[in-house]
Amino acid sequence: MWDESPKDECGVLGIYAPQEDVARLAFFGLSALQHRGQEAAGLAVSDGQAIRLHKDVGLVSQVFDPLTLSTIHGDFAIGHTRYSTTGSSCARNAQPFLIDTQYGPVALAHNGNLVNAPELRAHLMHRGIGLTSTSDTEVMTMMLACSQGDTWFERLKDAILHWKGAFSLVILTRDQVFAVRDPWGFHPLNVGMLPGGGHVAASEVGALQTLGCVAYREVQPGEIIALSNTAMTSFQAIPPMDPTAFCTFEHIYFSRSDNIFNRQSVHAVRQRLGVTLAVESPVDADVIIPVPDSSIPAAIGYAGESGIPYNDGLLKNRYIGRTFIEPSDEQRKLGIALKYNVILENVLNKRVVMIDDSIVRGNTTGPLVQLLRSAGAKEIHVRITCPPIIHPCFMGVDMGTYDELIAHRYHVNEVCAQIGADSLAYLSLSGMMQAIGQNDGYCNACFTGVYPLPLSQGVAKMSFEQSIA
Amino acid sequence: MWDESPKDECGVLGIYAPQEDVARLAFFGLSALQHRGQEAAGLAVSDGQAIRLHKDVGLVSQVFDPLTLSTIHGDFAIGHTRYSTTGSSCARNAQPFLIDTQYGPVALAHNGNLVNAPELRAHLMHRGIGLTSTSDTEVMTMMLACSQGDTWFERLKDAILHWKGAFSLVILTRDQVFAVRDPWGFHPLNVGMLPGGGHVAASEVGALQTLGCVAYREVQPGEIIALSNTAMTSFQAIPPMDPTAFCTFEHIYFSRSDNIFNRQSVHAVRQRLGVTLAVESPVDADVIIPVPDSSIPAAIGYAGESGIPYNDGLLKNRYIGRTFIEPSDEQRKLGIALKYNVILENVLNKRVVMIDDSIVRGNTTGPLVQLLRSAGAKEIHVRITCPPIIHPCFMGVDMGTYDELIAHRYHVNEVCAQIGADSLAYLSLSGMMQAIGQNDGYCNACFTGVYPLPLSQGVAKMSFEQSIA
Amino acid sequence: MWDESPKDECGVLGIYAPQEDVARLAFFGLSALQHRGQEAAGLAVSDGQAIRLHKDVGLVSQVFDPLTLSTIHGDFAIGHTRYSTTGSSCARNAQPFLIDTQYGPVALAHNGNLVNAPELRAHLMHRGIGLTSTSDTEVMTMMLACSQGDTWFERLKDAILHWKGAFSLVILTRDQVFAVRDPWGFHPLNVGMLPGGGHVAASEVGALQTLGCVAYREVQPGEIIALSNTAMTSFQAIPPMDPTAFCTFEHIYFSRSDNIFNRQSVHAVRQRLGVTLAVESPVDADVIIPVPDSSIPAAIGYAGESGIPYNDGLLKNRYIGRTFIEPSDEQRKLGIALKYNVILENVLNKRVVMIDDSIVRGNTTGPLVQLLRSAGAKEIHVRITCPPIIHPCFMGVDMGTYDELIAHRYHVNEVCAQIGADSLAYLSLSGMMQAIGQNDGYCNACFTGVYPLPLSQGVAKMSFEQSIA
Amino acid sequence: MWDESPKDECGVLGIYAPQEDVARLAFFGLSALQHRGQEAAGLAVSDGQAIRLHKDVGLVSQVFDPLTLSTIHGDFAIGHTRYSTTGSSCARNAQPFLIDTQYGPVALAHNGNLVNAPELRAHLMHRGIGLTSTSDTEVMTMMLACSQGDTWFERLKDAILHWKGAFSLVILTRDQVFAVRDPWGFHPLNVGMLPGGGHVAASEVGALQTLGCVAYREVQPGEIIALSNTAMTSFQAIPPMDPTAFCTFEHIYFSRSDNIFNRQSVHAVRQRLGVTLAVESPVDADVIIPVPDSSIPAAIGYAGESGIPYNDGLLKNRYIGRTFIEPSDEQRKLGIALKYNVILENVLNKRVVMIDDSIVRGNTTGPLVQLLRSAGAKEIHVRITCPPIIHPCFMGVDMGTYDELIAHRYHVNEVCAQIGADSLAYLSLSGMMQAIGQNDGYCNACFTGVYPLPLSQGVAKMSFEQSIA
Repeated sequence: MWDESPKDECGVLGIYAPQEDVARLAFFGLSALQHRGQEAAGLAVSDGQAIRLHKDVGLVSQVFDPLTLSTIHGDFAIGHTRYSTTGSSCARNAQPFLIDTQYGPVALAHNGNLVNAPELRAHLMHRGIGLTSTSDTEVMTMMLACSQGDTWFERLKDAILHWKGAFSLVILTRDQVFAVRDPWGFHPLNVGMLPGGGHVAASEVGALQTLGCVAYREVQPGEIIALSNTAMTSFQAIPPMDPTAFCTFEHIYFSRSDNIFNRQSVHAVRQRLGVTLAVESPVDADVIIPVPDSSIPAAIGYAGESGIPYNDGLLKNRYIGRTFIEPSDEQRKLGIALKYNVILENVLNKRVVMIDDSIVRGNTTGPLVQLLRSAGAKEIHVRITCPPIIHPCFMGVDMGTYDELIAHRYHVNEVCAQIGADSLAYLSLSGMMQAIGQNDGYCNACFTGVYPLPLSQGVAKMSFEQSIA
Repeated sequence: MWDESPKDECGVLGIYAPQEDVARLAFFGLSALQHRGQEAAGLAVSDGQAIRLHKDVGLVSQVFDPLTLSTIHGDFAIGHTRYSTTGSSCARNAQPFLIDTQYGPVALAHNGNLVNAPELRAHLMHRGIGLTSTSDTEVMTMMLACSQGDTWFERLKDAILHWKGAFSLVILTRDQVFAVRDPWGFHPLNVGMLPGGGHVAASEVGALQTLGCVAYREVQPGEIIALSNTAMTSFQAIPPMDPTAFCTFEHIYFSRSDNIFNRQSVHAVRQRLGVTLAVESPVDADVIIPVPDSSIPAAIGYAGESGIPYNDGLLKNRYIGRTFIEPSDEQRKLGIALKYNVILENVLNKRVVMIDDSIVRGNTTGPLVQLLRSAGAKEIHVRITCPPIIHPCFMGVDMGTYDELIAHRYHVNEVCAQIGADSLAYLSLSGMMQAIGQNDGYCNACFTGVYPLPLSQGVAKMSFEQSIA
Repeated sequence: MWDESPKDECGVLGIYAPQEDVARLAFFGLSALQHRGQEAAGLAVSDGQAIRLHKDVGLVSQVFDPLTLSTIHGDFAIGHTRYSTTGSSCARNAQPFLIDTQYGPVALAHNGNLVNAPELRAHLMHRGIGLTSTSDTEVMTMMLACSQGDTWFERLKDAILHWKGAFSLVILTRDQVFAVRDPWGFHPLNVGMLPGGGHVAASEVGALQTLGCVAYREVQPGEIIALSNTAMTSFQAIPPMDPTAFCTFEHIYFSRSDNIFNRQSVHAVRQRLGVTLAVESPVDADVIIPVPDSSIPAAIGYAGESGIPYNDGLLKNRYIGRTFIEPSDEQRKLGIALKYNVILENVLNKRVVMIDDSIVRGNTTGPLVQLLRSAGAKEIHVRITCPPIIHPCFMGVDMGTYDELIAHRYHVNEVCAQIGADSLAYLSLSGMMQAIGQNDGYCNACFTGVYPLPLSQGVAKMSFEQSIA
Repeated sequence: MWDESPKDECGVLGIYAPQEDVARLAFFGLSALQHRGQEAAGLAVSDGQAIRLHKDVGLVSQVFDPLTLSTIHGDFAIGHTRYSTTGSSCARNAQPFLIDTQYGPVALAHNGNLVNAPELRAHLMHRGIGLTSTSDTEVMTMMLACSQGDTWFERLKDAILHWKGAFSLVILTRDQVFAVRDPWGFHPLNVGMLPGGGHVAASEVGALQTLGCVAYREVQPGEIIALSNTAMTSFQAIPPMDPTAFCTFEHIYFSRSDNIFNRQSVHAVRQRLGVTLAVESPVDADVIIPVPDSSIPAAIGYAGESGIPYNDGLLKNRYIGRTFIEPSDEQRKLGIALKYNVILENVLNKRVVMIDDSIVRGNTTGPLVQLLRSAGAKEIHVRITCPPIIHPCFMGVDMGTYDELIAHRYHVNEVCAQIGADSLAYLSLSGMMQAIGQNDGYCNACFTGVYPLPLSQGVAKMSFEQSIA
């Protein structure tokens, strides 16, 4: 269970649909990517002449209303949903980012993190360019404005060579939409065809499904795709890295279970993670319960493999968690449990196996064990569908510092004692990769400390702050 | 699957907690009742002298912020979450309702519907009383203001005798909180003890659990309970009706699965509904999938009984549905499916049993069957955990008119054809009651047309309309 | 200069206009009454069947937009603008107040204050009526609901006999609009004819002018007028009190200068106040400057009579004063002057006569004198267009308590020293009445302590508080 | 009377005040510049390290609250109030504009218009710079980022040479505030000293007065001033143009009457405009009335010179004009007059001279004459304090196109007939300059067609549109 929202797990969307009201279509597509970012949302739409952008803080359904959608009509669109980073929830940071250039207007939306952003930023400034934010999204967009080449395609091919790190991008010009994925393949990006004509690019297959797309496939690492009405134009701008560095956590936690990542159904992988976990760390118990929602497929898998019945044990309160009001410590001690309630009869006097996807900082697993204990569980065995996380992610996922990672500071049996479980087992690295169905090509740095590319020394200095209410 | 939000399925909460910041406690409690009403929320708090009320349109987390909570401090509180009725989403209709009377201030929050509200309203007006709304909540509160008796308890005992219909109430005076349930027991109401002292009343056990309550029980039909610091004062104001008229739909759909209703765990009843359904209407199939969330326990039950594997097949898009933007008919035809996505590998080339709680108007089941069909399901067998709904509810649940109820207009095989399923089976009335574990004492009027009390002829004439903000 | 906004100086408006979009007309009329109340605004409109009400906190232009106006169409309307009272700026207190009664819906908007409201309130509660607010507006409306009589007119005639104090009212029923004025005539109320048919009632003639009304006249003390398409129906419900008690401050400060009150042009009266003041308290000086806006006519009058040139000396910053941000004491000492700027060349090295309408608490006159002094004025002579205010108003104008009234605590020469003027003179009572053109029939209680009707002993106890965001 | 708000008449403010809460000080200063722009407001503040910016659509008092001000603390600040341009009221266009550069952060706020903005923009883009807006403010800021020089002062001296047109600027860096005025001196810019230490730059003297400044003077055409704690650093970056091109309309209309422009009190100039007008175009009449507010000093002057009494005749409704709701044509015909009411006794049966500052499109003068006529004026003589406007302004003031200017299309006697006056006279050009006290050095292009600098052929193509919130 992720203790807080991970940084940089945004959703991106691109559409070219000449026969459709593309803004409305994009609205539905963005809604299906809402789980990848609930802080802010934005859409940029081109009618072939001008690009119109609307973005703001809030859910997709709060940022857009029918009137707003009707003012950003056109055939070409890109969109973005943004995850919250601590304390900086402002419209300024919303995407897409839009500028006017010598080549005409260009907008860009980004999921990922460049490790060499500080160097690129310094280089741009040295050229005399002023930047309105500290985001690497603006850096990438500005680099397109000063890249060489006769077409956007040429300039994009030029710029992409300088970007190191994770980037699943959609780019909008006056009359084109591009989908671009870094050569490591860190985060997902998919394209599909609209049955009525046109194409869609989206972080996840779920958004393509929502729009009724057919014939979808993943954008390949290093590939640039120009969306079109009929056949798409693809270009392998950079060969895929060898090895690639697919982010394992897209399988474990980030993607919605209906996504497809590196040719695998996320739901199926999660179910197999549960199966493998049952093989590796069996336990004599009465019921298998998931921590909803991300661990449900793994719990089904564990139950099937172990023969122990699957059932609901924890009910997620879907309306808490978006609030800034927290119980006092006193109230917590008295048993206030906001996020989850217990299905009593499935826990009382039972030996419970609780399946969770991960333990990062350790703030949520302990209280859950305590909640089950208070509800009368006889034994509580925690099973985690990935190995211990002992290294920070420098590729853009905010897992916290070394000091914050509970598995970096404590051995498994210490963690087990701290969370108050009767037993705790993590899935092994090899078991995890086996469930994923691969031996390598994945970034497992958070488990192993082996990073797929060298880390930058600098960081962008925050020399200003903008807030537009 | 309920086609739209049912009317009058509100949540109520009452707290007396002298050692606590009762407003903050009530905030957490209301959040746990949010599923019973997402249109508006309100809290009235007394510090022993004055009652302070704050209510507004929106989710609990939108209506209240720390500053607002800090201004309504005290030891006594009642709260309310309100379901949307078509088009009248205004602050004016939010509850609790608060008035000043010859006996001091009194506030009231209500879940239910009085069938004799028009007569009571006319009677009040005839006495020269003006009413600021058309709600039966105001009628009940005004009746307390003009009831006879030396104490609020006495006046409440007097007033309750005139109220016909469903009412699960919480009432706040300067220094008391009452919980009151109608003698038919239509809707749930529970009380529990705070471990640090004080008591809580709430529509559902889940809210009591969230607050860490212990020793909870249901308020009995016809019972009035005065919350207190230590032992509660209970009084059987009216004997329970014989028979009682518990609303079956609290088991089927309304309550969250962690609630307890008429001494039965809602989750357990739903699981047994699935078991019974598997016995009554078995089918040779490859996978059992629920329509999330309410049908999950029944699907687990059906799967267990049938031996066919349980798995996710439909994924609910949790961010769509609160929007006023809808796809065009054209877009729908092209396959836009907003509310649910499919887990492909669990459906493709499979014989699927889709478990749903009910079919009311029939607007949602058909598209779901179609969605599974497009995803490659070989066969789709729909199983419903209650009998066909062929009569409107006049007890306050907005199931629609006779004309709107699909099962009133069509035979089962016609409905099956309309929704495009390979087979359709409803649970029988006796099977349903067997799963609930009772033979009678329930209101099954929507299935049988046998109403537990005579219906009023009049309706409150809307002679005005108020909108604030 | 009034130190803060006076309580209870609201604006009321009533329209019957069968040929017009009455809501839109009422919007323009209310805007012309905005100076009488900037806290909240509301409109209730009847189409002959149902009354629709919209009200909220804010300026008229903030509360209403074209969409809102289009939803409250009809032929009959009443409206209200409300002045702020400290800290209780909430939609709940906005007017009109609307209820449903045995006789149908009725709405009421009120400018004034009943001195016997506590007794009337207690009487209503004793009858078993609950009240949702502590306002006397609700009390009056509820009394209409329980009055005897076959028609609204009859019931109004009955109720009005019980109301003691100041009330300029507009009342809306399904198919009638009434204008009612208390028999003392405290505050203004006028009626006029629309050239296209229909009639308008409004607190001030300015609103009638804005709507293009012709043939307007004042509602007489004790008169009830039913607006109609052609000829109005008038009824002298109570004979005018002998003497009447017109509020002198409507001439001095409250009314806009284009109003007519007790048959006198307010602008002309103010100009004569200046003339008389010049006669009573002449001074050798170089320039006459007003404190804008209310003292401009008096300054023109003083200048004309004295032969000393009139000119601008103080410029009002029209955008400050609506803010909750205040300068620190330190900043004030350093000279921050927010509300007024000086026209330097009209003050520097000059002997200045500063004309102001009144000194209530004394918080604003001193800083203004200081501002002129810093700008280089050689001498500053303050002339006030009314006598010293030494008694509170118990008729509804919040002039402050005895302790707050600077003229109650200090002699004129002490006040002069405190405000730092070279000389200070008030207009005499007889001089003021001479300028008004009357000897009696006015309430001068704040100058004389002679109140026109006995004061109530009780006050409405605030036993609750409602806030609807 | 200006028919609509003129474009580009913004207010700018800069403060360096080491002993003060500079954000709060800036708030008060901006409020005093609110009349120069009511669409949007913004403040950028530096604490010596980082610059923090807050800006939004709305009045100063709506954009800032105490909490927001407390988060942008520091010693250095610049601010801006912005006038509305048709239809594009969005936060994106608010100023100051802030970027990070190779030299650190820099923010800029601008009053004016560059005539060579399209060329500068093209030049920047050609260098590979992307722009987020079409404003010349961004162009100027970006030019600072790519200018040569060791200090901001050096780079500013470099950049200013390229800017052609009107610019009164304030610029904020980490530890400096600059005030800069174009060498033509089009619009006002003043600096003053805070008595407690520090300096302030502001568009108008009124803002300096409000902050208690002493020893203020105008920034000279072509001058750059670095604000400091004690003595300011001044540098004549460009010699003043010969001739200068002070905008006459700052005297006539734009500036508040307490401003000083080209060493002249605006109030005194306006009063002399009235005197000269009385000499040039006398008329036998009973009363002189101004169109408030800008024409009041001229009416006082005209009255003094002519010996005809000055009085109020038109009362401005201060709450109308900010609304989007307009009367229908039908309603207008029936006499709805929203913006002004008449003081009847000062007009009825009188020969009235109505003094107004200008006639631009002619939309407002006619209705005013009609209003006075309906009120019974015997004769109405319109006197305008400037010559006929027959040429558009290409220096940034939106006076409309040739076709929109009534005096371009019609002779004076035709205009007089159209507005329905008994006589109409404009002030002569020489009379106007005589009242101003100068023979040349002013831009009178709107009267003469002689523009002070050649006009650019290009215009910035709007290739995109951004809306945030």
